[in-house]
Amino acid sequence: MVTSSAILPEAALIMPSKRTSILVSEVGPRDGLQSISSIMPTEAKKAWIAAEAAAGVPEIEVGSFVPPKLLPQLADTAEIVAYARTIPGLTVAALVPNFKGAQNAITAGAHKITLPLSVSETHSLKNLRKTHDQVFDEVRAIVELLNTLPKDQRPHFEGGLSTAFGCTLEGHVDERKVVELAVKLMTLGCDEVGLSDTTGYANPAQLQRLIRLVRAEVGDDGLTGVHLHNTRGLGLANALAALEVGITTLDASLGGLGGCPFAPGASGNIVTEDLVFMLDAMGYETGIDLDKLLVVRDIVIAALPGEEMYGFTPDAGLPKGYHGPWGLPAHAA
Amino acid sequence: MVTSSAILPEAALIMPSKRTSILVSEVGPRDGLQSISSIMPTEAKKAWIAAEAAAGVPEIEVGSFVPPKLLPQLADTAEIVAYARTIPGLTVAALVPNFKGAQNAITAGAHKITLPLSVSETHSLKNLRKTHDQVFDEVRAIVELLNTLPKDQRPHFEGGLSTAFGCTLEGHVDERKVVELAVKLMTLGCDEVGLSDTTGYANPAQLQRLIRLVRAEVGDDGLTGVHLHNTRGLGLANALAALEVGITTLDASLGGLGGCPFAPGASGNIVTEDLVFMLDAMGYETGIDLDKLLVVRDIVIAALPGEEMYGFTPDAGLPKGYHGPWGLPAHAA
Repeated sequence: MVTSSAILPEAALIMPSKRTSILVSEVGPRDGLQSISSIMPTEAKKAWIAAEAAAGVPEIEVGSFVPPKLLPQLADTAEIVAYARTIPGLTVAALVPNFKGAQNAITAGAHKITLPLSVSETHSLKNLRKTHDQVFDEVRAIVELLNTLPKDQRPHFEGGLSTAFGCTLEGHVDERKVVELAVKLMTLGCDEVGLSDTTGYANPAQLQRLIRLVRAEVGDDGLTGVHLHNTRGLGLANALAALEVGITTLDASLGGLGGCPFAPGASGNIVTEDLVFMLDAMGYETGIDLDKLLVVRDIVIAALPGEEMYGFTPDAGLPKGYHGPWGLPAHAA
Repeated sequence: MVTSSAILPEAALIMPSKRTSILVSEVGPRDGLQSISSIMPTEAKKAWIAAEAAAGVPEIEVGSFVPPKLLPQLADTAEIVAYARTIPGLTVAALVPNFKGAQNAITAGAHKITLPLSVSETHSLKNLRKTHDQVFDEVRAIVELLNTLPKDQRPHFEGGLSTAFGCTLEGHVDERKVVELAVKLMTLGCDEVGLSDTTGYANPAQLQRLIRLVRAEVGDDGLTGVHLHNTRGLGLANALAALEVGITTLDASLGGLGGCPFAPGASGNIVTEDLVFMLDAMGYETGIDLDKLLVVRDIVIAALPGEEMYGFTPDAGLPKGYHGPWGLPAHAA
C-alpha cells in the first residue's frame, strides 16, 4: 500500500523519556591480558584503568588472583586492585579461581569477586584443575569467609558459569546442566550468577533462551550480566539479544583483547568501543563519554606493541554530527 | 528465587517446527569489487559466483552497469550476468545507476535490477551525479521500458535508498525524508524499495524504527530487504534487529569486502560467512551449506592478493560438533 502523504506525526519519532541504564564492565585488564603473552607494565595498567574510569566506565575487572607462575601477566593484581580502589566511584572487580584467591582479593579490597565454574567439566579440569564438586567446596569456603566480614567490607560474590554456550573440548553443553549449576551456585550462597560465552559459540536465540531458563530458576536479580566473546563475529548481536531480555550488565574488553588460553581459537571479547557506541546510539544510558573512551586505546596500543586490537568504531570514528542517540530528527535527539 | 529442581520440561527446549526462511543476497561481486582498486579477473569472478551458488546462496548481485571508465573493476558485468544466468536456480541481480544501465542489464538478462537513490542529495550528486528529481526521471524511464516487456522477461525492479541512516557528507538524515522517498519510488513504479546503511551509521533501534515507518507507508511487501555495512562493528546486531521486525532479505559480502568509494571510511559490508553462521545457528533456513560457503573465500583470496578480508567464523571454524541450530539438547536439534 502506498499512501499519498509521507509526513509522519512528530510523536512517532520521539525517544522514550526515560533511558535505561546499562552497566558496561571492562574486563580487558583481566581477560584481555591473561590471554596474551606480552606482560603489560604495572604503570601502564594503572594508566589504562585510570583513563577508562575517567571516561566514565563504572566497573573494571582489574585482574585475577591466580598464582603468578600460572599467569605472570597478572602477578601484580593485588597492587592494581589497591590502586583502582583509590579511584572515586569505580567498582573494582577481580577474578578468583579458589578460596585462596578470594582471601587475597578481599585483603586487597576488591568490591566484587567472580569465581568461574565451567559448565563443561572437561574445561573445568583444564582451566581450574578442579571437578565441579571441588569447585563447590571452594564456593562454600568463600561464602563462610564472606559471612565473617562486616557488611561494608563484604564484596559482591558472583559465580561465573563459563562455557555456558558450548565448549571447544566437549562441544555441545546441555542447557539443563547450565540451569542446574546456576541453581547450585545460588544455593551455596553466591549473590548472583553470570553466563559466559567463553568459546564464542553463542547465538542470539540460544542466549535469550538460556537467560530466560536461568532467570526462571534464580530470579531476574540472580542473573543480571553476561560475558560475551566475538569469536565468530556475533558478539554485538548477542549483546543486543541479551539487552532485549533484560540483561543490564555487559562485559567487554577494550580493543577486544581477550579469550581463554585453554580454549583454542576462542579469542576476543566483545569490543568495548563498539559496544558503547551501539548502546549510546540506541539511547541507552552508560555514563561513558565516547570521545574519551576512544582515546584510551592509545595507552593499550603503546603498552602492548605488536598485539592485535579489534574494533571498528575507533578506526571509523563517530558518525558525522553525532551527539548521542542517533537517527532521530534533531529536535527529538 | 531459587527452586530446588533444575530439571526443565522438555517442551520448553524444542525448536519451533516451522523454520523461517531468510534470503541471503551476496553482493560481494558488485559492492565488494567496486570499492577496491584491484581488478578481479573475469574467470575468477565466475568461479566465485559458481562456488557460492553451489554452496546454496540463492541470489548474487554480480555487477553494476556503470561506464567502464568510472568502475573498470566491473567492466565485464554483462558477460558475468550472462554467465550467472546459466547457473540453475540462481537469481542474478545487478545494480543500475540510470536508464542506460537498466537497458544493458535487461539485455544481459538480469533477474533483478536495483537503482540506488541516495537520501542525502549531496551524496546523490557525488555518487550518481544526479539530483533527486533527475533520479526520478531515470526511474520513470526504466518503468516505461519494463512495461513494454513480456512478463517473463521483466526483471524485479528495486529502488535502493542509500545513506538512509546517515551520510558521511551531510551527517544526520531525517527519517521523514527516507519515508517520503520510499513512497515516491513506489509511486513511480518500483516493485520494492530497500534500505541501505551505506555509511555504517545505523544502530538497531534506528533500523527497527525506520523499517516500521517505511513499511507503514509502502506495506510489508514493499520493503523486504536491508543492505548493511559493518563500519562500526554493528553489522550483525543490525541484521538481528532487522530480522526481528520481519525483514527477510539480507545483503552481505563474502569476507566483508565492500563499501562506498564516495563515502570515506564507510568500508565493509556485513560478512556473509558470519551472517550465515548466525542465521543457521539460530535455526533460520537459508538453504546454504556452511561448510561449502567457508571455502569459497579461498577463491577470492587467491584472486585478490593483498586485499583485506573480514569475518571471524572462517578463522574460528564452526563450533565443535556443530550440526545446525545450536545450543539445544541433542534430541531437539
